[in-house]
Amino acid sequence: MSATRTLPENHNWRLQLWSWPEVECYLKHNKGVILPLGSTEQHGPTGAIGTDSLTADAIAQAVAERTGVLVAPPQPFGMAEHHLGFPGTISLQPSTLLALLQDVVISLVRHGFERIYVINGHGGNMATARAAFSQAHGRSASLGLASAPRLRCKLASWFLAPAVMSHARQLYGEREGQHATPSEIAVTLHLYPHLAEKLRPLPEPAPVGSIHGWEDFRRRYPDGRMGSDPSLATAAAGQQLVDRAVTALSEDLQRFLKAP
Amino acid sequence: MSATRTLPENHNWRLQLWSWPEVECYLKHNKGVILPLGSTEQHGPTGAIGTDSLTADAIAQAVAERTGVLVAPPQPFGMAEHHLGFPGTISLQPSTLLALLQDVVISLVRHGFERIYVINGHGGNMATARAAFSQAHGRSASLGLASAPRLRCKLASWFLAPAVMSHARQLYGEREGQHATPSEIAVTLHLYPHLAEKLRPLPEPAPVGSIHGWEDFRRRYPDGRMGSDPSLATAAAGQQLVDRAVTALSEDLQRFLKAP
Amino acid sequence: MSATRTLPENHNWRLQLWSWPEVECYLKHNKGVILPLGSTEQHGPTGAIGTDSLTADAIAQAVAERTGVLVAPPQPFGMAEHHLGFPGTISLQPSTLLALLQDVVISLVRHGFERIYVINGHGGNMATARAAFSQAHGRSASLGLASAPRLRCKLASWFLAPAVMSHARQLYGEREGQHATPSEIAVTLHLYPHLAEKLRPLPEPAPVGSIHGWEDFRRRYPDGRMGSDPSLATAAAGQQLVDRAVTALSEDLQRFLKAP
Amino acid sequence: MSATRTLPENHNWRLQLWSWPEVECYLKHNKGVILPLGSTEQHGPTGAIGTDSLTADAIAQAVAERTGVLVAPPQPFGMAEHHLGFPGTISLQPSTLLALLQDVVISLVRHGFERIYVINGHGGNMATARAAFSQAHGRSASLGLASAPRLRCKLASWFLAPAVMSHARQLYGEREGQHATPSEIAVTLHLYPHLAEKLRPLPEPAPVGSIHGWEDFRRRYPDGRMGSDPSLATAAAGQQLVDRAVTALSEDLQRFLKAP
Amino acid sequence: MSATRTLPENHNWRLQLWSWPEVECYLKHNKGVILPLGSTEQHGPTGAIGTDSLTADAIAQAVAERTGVLVAPPQPFGMAEHHLGFPGTISLQPSTLLALLQDVVISLVRHGFERIYVINGHGGNMATARAAFSQAHGRSASLGLASAPRLRCKLASWFLAPAVMSHARQLYGEREGQHATPSEIAVTLHLYPHLAEKLRPLPEPAPVGSIHGWEDFRRRYPDGRMGSDPSLATAAAGQQLVDRAVTALSEDLQRFLKAP
Amino acid sequence: MSATRTLPENHNWRLQLWSWPEVECYLKHNKGVILPLGSTEQHGPTGAIGTDSLTADAIAQAVAERTGVLVAPPQPFGMAEHHLGFPGTISLQPSTLLALLQDVVISLVRHGFERIYVINGHGGNMATARAAFSQAHGRSASLGLASAPRLRCKLASWFLAPAVMSHARQLYGEREGQHATPSEIAVTLHLYPHLAEKLRPLPEPAPVGSIHGWEDFRRRYPDGRMGSDPSLATAAAGQQLVDRAVTALSEDLQRFLKAP
Repeated sequence: MSATRTLPENHNWRLQLWSWPEVECYLKHNKGVILPLGSTEQHGPTGAIGTDSLTADAIAQAVAERTGVLVAPPQPFGMAEHHLGFPGTISLQPSTLLALLQDVVISLVRHGFERIYVINGHGGNMATARAAFSQAHGRSASLGLASAPRLRCKLASWFLAPAVMSHARQLYGEREGQHATPSEIAVTLHLYPHLAEKLRPLPEPAPVGSIHGWEDFRRRYPDGRMGSDPSLATAAAGQQLVDRAVTALSEDLQRFLKAP
Repeated sequence: MSATRTLPENHNWRLQLWSWPEVECYLKHNKGVILPLGSTEQHGPTGAIGTDSLTADAIAQAVAERTGVLVAPPQPFGMAEHHLGFPGTISLQPSTLLALLQDVVISLVRHGFERIYVINGHGGNMATARAAFSQAHGRSASLGLASAPRLRCKLASWFLAPAVMSHARQLYGEREGQHATPSEIAVTLHLYPHLAEKLRPLPEPAPVGSIHGWEDFRRRYPDGRMGSDPSLATAAAGQQLVDRAVTALSEDLQRFLKAP
Repeated sequence: MSATRTLPENHNWRLQLWSWPEVECYLKHNKGVILPLGSTEQHGPTGAIGTDSLTADAIAQAVAERTGVLVAPPQPFGMAEHHLGFPGTISLQPSTLLALLQDVVISLVRHGFERIYVINGHGGNMATARAAFSQAHGRSASLGLASAPRLRCKLASWFLAPAVMSHARQLYGEREGQHATPSEIAVTLHLYPHLAEKLRPLPEPAPVGSIHGWEDFRRRYPDGRMGSDPSLATAAAGQQLVDRAVTALSEDLQRFLKAP
Repeated sequence: MSATRTLPENHNWRLQLWSWPEVECYLKHNKGVILPLGSTEQHGPTGAIGTDSLTADAIAQAVAERTGVLVAPPQPFGMAEHHLGFPGTISLQPSTLLALLQDVVISLVRHGFERIYVINGHGGNMATARAAFSQAHGRSASLGLASAPRLRCKLASWFLAPAVMSHARQLYGEREGQHATPSEIAVTLHLYPHLAEKLRPLPEPAPVGSIHGWEDFRRRYPDGRMGSDPSLATAAAGQQLVDRAVTALSEDLQRFLKAP
Repeated sequence: MSATRTLPENHNWRLQLWSWPEVECYLKHNKGVILPLGSTEQHGPTGAIGTDSLTADAIAQAVAERTGVLVAPPQPFGMAEHHLGFPGTISLQPSTLLALLQDVVISLVRHGFERIYVINGHGGNMATARAAFSQAHGRSASLGLASAPRLRCKLASWFLAPAVMSHARQLYGEREGQHATPSEIAVTLHLYPHLAEKLRPLPEPAPVGSIHGWEDFRRRYPDGRMGSDPSLATAAAGQQLVDRAVTALSEDLQRFLKAP
Repeated sequence: MSATRTLPENHNWRLQLWSWPEVECYLKHNKGVILPLGSTEQHGPTGAIGTDSLTADAIAQAVAERTGVLVAPPQPFGMAEHHLGFPGTISLQPSTLLALLQDVVISLVRHGFERIYVINGHGGNMATARAAFSQAHGRSASLGLASAPRLRCKLASWFLAPAVMSHARQLYGEREGQHATPSEIAVTLHLYPHLAEKLRPLPEPAPVGSIHGWEDFRRRYPDGRMGSDPSLATAAAGQQLVDRAVTALSEDLQRFLKAP
């Protein structure tokens, strides 16, 4: 997203930079599309509010380049109700995100896309995205769209890829925590090195626990972190994590495209 | 639900059999309530369509009796869009189930309930239920309900309790499968022994795979089973599974009630 | 729902206990289905909160057995906004109940059901159920479902059957009232005799009047009764009322199935 | 609504012709308001499509003049899904009409109106209007509006007033029917005498029966009439019916305004 | 709308006064229909609350008579959220008005109407009406309605017609303002001469400015006027403005009907 | 968005790159925020599908840098129903976009933002965005949010700024057209020079006309252009247009922040 972004890049797979006849041509041999899904929410006292969007988008672009699959623009607002107690968080209610994802999927199915691969950067989106897939399946069938019977949607949360989780555990052990984790912060440092200037030693975080309403969340996790020590993050680790995520998701996507 | 139901039972914890002053009294010392959540959907060629509701309700009643927590009546219709290709399935769209669960939670919070423990019998409900909890948190806060800051919701899918899963694996190994499993069918035999009459040897099931729209589901899993052999189910195993589920969920519920 | 339930019962007509091939077979000769619709709401200081669901479900089961019509599981939550001032009431907003009933009807029409007979236990559901039928008719036509042109929905509130009303009037006269009536309480005593232990003489009830919001309702009817004396209820009268309701609704259902 | 309209008229009670300071002044001594609710739907081969709106509005104006209660403009579109098989019918889905009536009621409650008296001209609106009242009660309470605890809504369908029904029965007996009735047509003749030119002898109508979807409705009632003979209608009878309706509803409204 | 209404009138083009066979016949040679869209909202200390509906309806009737296009009854409630700080305003939320207009358009398209010409009296309706047209296009296509591919909707706000605006500017210059303008008030005087009795000299109005929430609106424009001097209005000017509006919109409508 | 993006850039004003304490600090002296709103839709045979998002975002970033106002991430999906006939278009229904914008605004108002400045790149979003502002005003007031009375929203469509329009007219005259215009394409060339490779001489475009449903749109404008000649676009002209837009919108935003 900026001059300092360090991922190699060509624009060949970004839907935003294609024309419609190029998409028409693409659909003759590939029915897959990647949708990056992020969130705009607090990431602790030192993390970037856009962490979940920036990471999902960067990984999605790299997966697109590696696999030759078209990638839609990232949806930057997700379901972040529990973070609304912290300034800067922008949240869609689950019912709104459900309607949005349904409309996006239906638009794509109209054109003949059959494999929607959502690369997700935020745990809070997972339930609603899955609910939206179910609703989109029903609705595309009800609309009688030609591609509806072959529609498949898949949610791929990069931070849950086994290769990513094991590396994060190896790097940070217990200090990985569950929100504003050093691994996601590391990826943002890899993308935007100047973000490292925000980092500083932090007091012991509130321990990992449950998530309920936003008032409760802020009381439980006063600085927004859940058991994490983001001061451990480095751009170098971020690059390793991105590499592992891109490899894992690219393979998963290729299986998804070929699966019956 | 019938004279042949074999779980021991007294009615002390069923909300349906209480009067409102009894609820008012209960709320003075206990803020917890159990909500059984089921589904009405095909369970293979020999399984009962109500399996997910019957099992969730029976386990919920037993957990209620063991823990002394009030139990609401079971919601029998859930999110079963992918099963609509089989006669008898009744499904709520995700947006409808989301609205329903939100209304139920808000009703309970109005009265002062603070811990909503959903005992769930159907995997397909999980995403929507979690989305509904997030939305209910936001809405109860927006409404300024006195108990809103202390509201906690938890989803407890009995079939995912570790003690249940390990026993099912030990009993059935690979033949457990993922839908119309011998373990859930066994629980229904324990509850309604005459259901055993429906069982018969079945051909090799379609292998476990992914779930998309209902047309695709029926093509992939022509008799409704996903890798399972329900002919292995016995009422005795059902009792063992119920016992393990009740023990696991009762302990979990007690922790939930005490947790900050 | 329990060992003490005294209605004779076999499970032949409960959708929850059928398999999908059995439903497929049934649809070859019968397009009818019964849906019990209840509510979870206060029923005065001595009545059971589940009265409307318990009575609707019991009568629906008996009608099913007498007529050989399949019966869906009871929907336990209905439109009870005006009772939310009393602890234990769980209410769906009209818009939510409308969506739920629409989804249930559409699911059934997909399978080929053409006659949906809703046995209702709660006056507060009537308006919304009728609105839902209108919407379901429009939507099933819009979806182009094969059975849509033959779809008929009917609302049968058991307590409004003339044979029931005249017997209730004969038994209780003016003391029948309009909510937490001795006749509905009597039916619950017939189903769950131990509920009689809750009964006790009560002061003169608030007179029958109008129903508005929940604050107004509680001010107008401080103990939840509307002109009724539930202490007059007996299990024996409950059995008589059930018998009359079952006879009346069975005949009505048979006419409904045959009507053009 | 026109130069040929024969009801006496001054504009003193039409909200549309007042200024806001006049409304502010009115609210100091009267919290009541009338809302005419109509429909735009076929009324048989000779009846006016606006019958339900024209009659409701005319009666509402006269009730307003007699009682000194402010009258809102008539809502001309209602729930007429079952009439959509006939050209000219305009229908709101129940969910839309529910939202509309809720918004109208909430607007009025914001200003301090406490008694909303809906004069209704169409049976098909009744269920949805009642559902809307329930939802508006809940929502106005949730919004914390000052007048919410005192809000009362009442549905007054003029054609169901006992004095109207008995007179219609006396005039037309069995030939009154249930839709496109001579009594409602008579009222339109009273309001717009030239409408009599459309009348002509008609063949025997389809007998009164049930109402389901619009395809079924048109098949069952091929010319739109349900058991009625509108050729019997006269302007003179219309005047009598209006008189009876206005008297009955004015008395009912005055009781409503005074009721606790 | 009353005996004092001075526009010449015959009823030939009012949908409310037609029968359905007349509509069926009309559709054989004309696919156009006019929908008057108003609002019920404060119009300054001396203007009629129904101004936007009365003007839109009167102009629509006259356009109908001049062009021979059928005219639906006026929708009297529109989007007036920003006026809710003044007693008497009745507003539909944008989402409600969107649903209403969608249902109205879909109803008309079902019958074969292809050109929906909305004559609008209120600036606040414009955004929502346009959004509704987009949604109705999508939905009518999704429903597979035969006329959907030929559907065209057009919003015609009479007060924005160049001939109207230039005349208003010539008559009132800067004192026209933007709400409760002398030109719209003049039209109401033309329709209902007795409204002139409300007029009186007013203090300098609040200057024209922006529109946000209703609290802000009332603070900014304490008597409801935006830069206007309605005391300048005369019935004679109203007639001139109506004439110009009718001519302009009639020509525009005829072009609209013929346009490909 | 890429290494080839040529606008100067520092990250000081991107919400995505801030931490929540930085937002908290910012809110102490500035209540304004910019929201870029785009669309993902066909832009003729040679234009980029993301044109409306890329241009809105780039201009928003530059305005942010010049004014020191925080800028939210761009919403890439807008209301593009009429472009759904061309592959690659992703559209939100108006009701969905309305809900999304309402949630975004409400989130921001919760934190204390009072001036929401939407920099918009797509004409099709304008109606829905304005409707959303009205609804968000009502809802934020209903929720009782502290900042609600001071909330102001403003829609700034960069391509409608007078300085932009006059320059576009001067550069392209009639060949500017209305969709896939050389001026918007020029801006994308300025941002992504390699997009120039897609340009080529095109046949005479379909003339500018009206916009209805997507089938009609594609029939009317077979290659997606509305009267435009995008082959005239140059990166140099794009820079001029951006400069003019940034200057105009920066001044407008500063007035907006200071306005009462």
